[in-house]
Amino acid sequence: MRVLGIDPGLRNLGWGVIDVAGSRLTHVANGICHSEPGDLAQRLLALHSQLTEVLRLYQPDAAAVEQTFVNKDAVSTLKLGQARGIALLVPAQAGLTVGEYAPNAIKKCVVGVGHAAKQQVDHMVRFQFPGAVIAGPDAADALAIAICHAHHLQSSDRLLAAVKRADVQRAAG
Amino acid sequence: MRVLGIDPGLRNLGWGVIDVAGSRLTHVANGICHSEPGDLAQRLLALHSQLTEVLRLYQPDAAAVEQTFVNKDAVSTLKLGQARGIALLVPAQAGLTVGEYAPNAIKKCVVGVGHAAKQQVDHMVRFQFPGAVIAGPDAADALAIAICHAHHLQSSDRLLAAVKRADVQRAAG
Repeated sequence: MRVLGIDPGLRNLGWGVIDVAGSRLTHVANGICHSEPGDLAQRLLALHSQLTEVLRLYQPDAAAVEQTFVNKDAVSTLKLGQARGIALLVPAQAGLTVGEYAPNAIKKCVVGVGHAAKQQVDHMVRFQFPGAVIAGPDAADALAIAICHAHHLQSSDRLLAAVKRADVQRAAG
Repeated sequence: MRVLGIDPGLRNLGWGVIDVAGSRLTHVANGICHSEPGDLAQRLLALHSQLTEVLRLYQPDAAAVEQTFVNKDAVSTLKLGQARGIALLVPAQAGLTVGEYAPNAIKKCVVGVGHAAKQQVDHMVRFQFPGAVIAGPDAADALAIAICHAHHLQSSDRLLAAVKRADVQRAAG
């Protein structure tokens, strides 16, 4: 199974693709969709085109986006929201359901604690994928989101499998 | 020249289309793109599909979106931002440049004062287009945005340029 993680942002939108086979995670690719300051609609169009190309190239089976909350002013939050709208739309247009994770849930999953520093997430992602060239902090965050979603999907798969086993046992017993 | 106005919102995204010939404005259509509470990516996808269909049907030459600032919490602002991202993206995908107007600029243009009540905007829109059936307050706001954009385009050389572009496109198409 191939998982895409997205760290939304208007200037830099990070993305990371990993393959999941059992408990084994493999790095596939990562990068940053970029938009230069200027006309907002054109910026969103640029992000949409670049992210659509990522999905076309890597054909992920699942996607997740960081559930970011900005503590700054309303203008920054609105800007982020607009970029996040594109980050959610593009995988949905490809027919994927899109997971959402709060920053602390991602940190807890990747580092083990919810209030880890940003550098620790970066470090753990590089540790998980030795040799992978990581395009920047936003791409590292996107890979962390993909890892978090992979773990979540695996544990829900296990839950489903356990429920099925229990049903079979009940039917047999 | 045909102008599309959009009042962004996640649950109700209002739209209004008007025709502009000299100083004469004519109502063409208005309505509301709707998304039911549930999976966010699916909601944005639904808004994107509905708004894309509006552009396909009415083929506007110009578009404008309200530059909304929510004074409420960050969660509401983020939600609005996501819907606004779609409202800006769809016209840009159709090759249009997208105007942005602050709520007070729209009120000042339509009612004459920047701090007019919402009902006054609604009233002036209905007064401007007698006989038009207006789908609701969000659609009335969208028509107000279209009126504002039409006035703005008229009072600048942009109208001439846009008319020329439209003529060339018509001749080519």
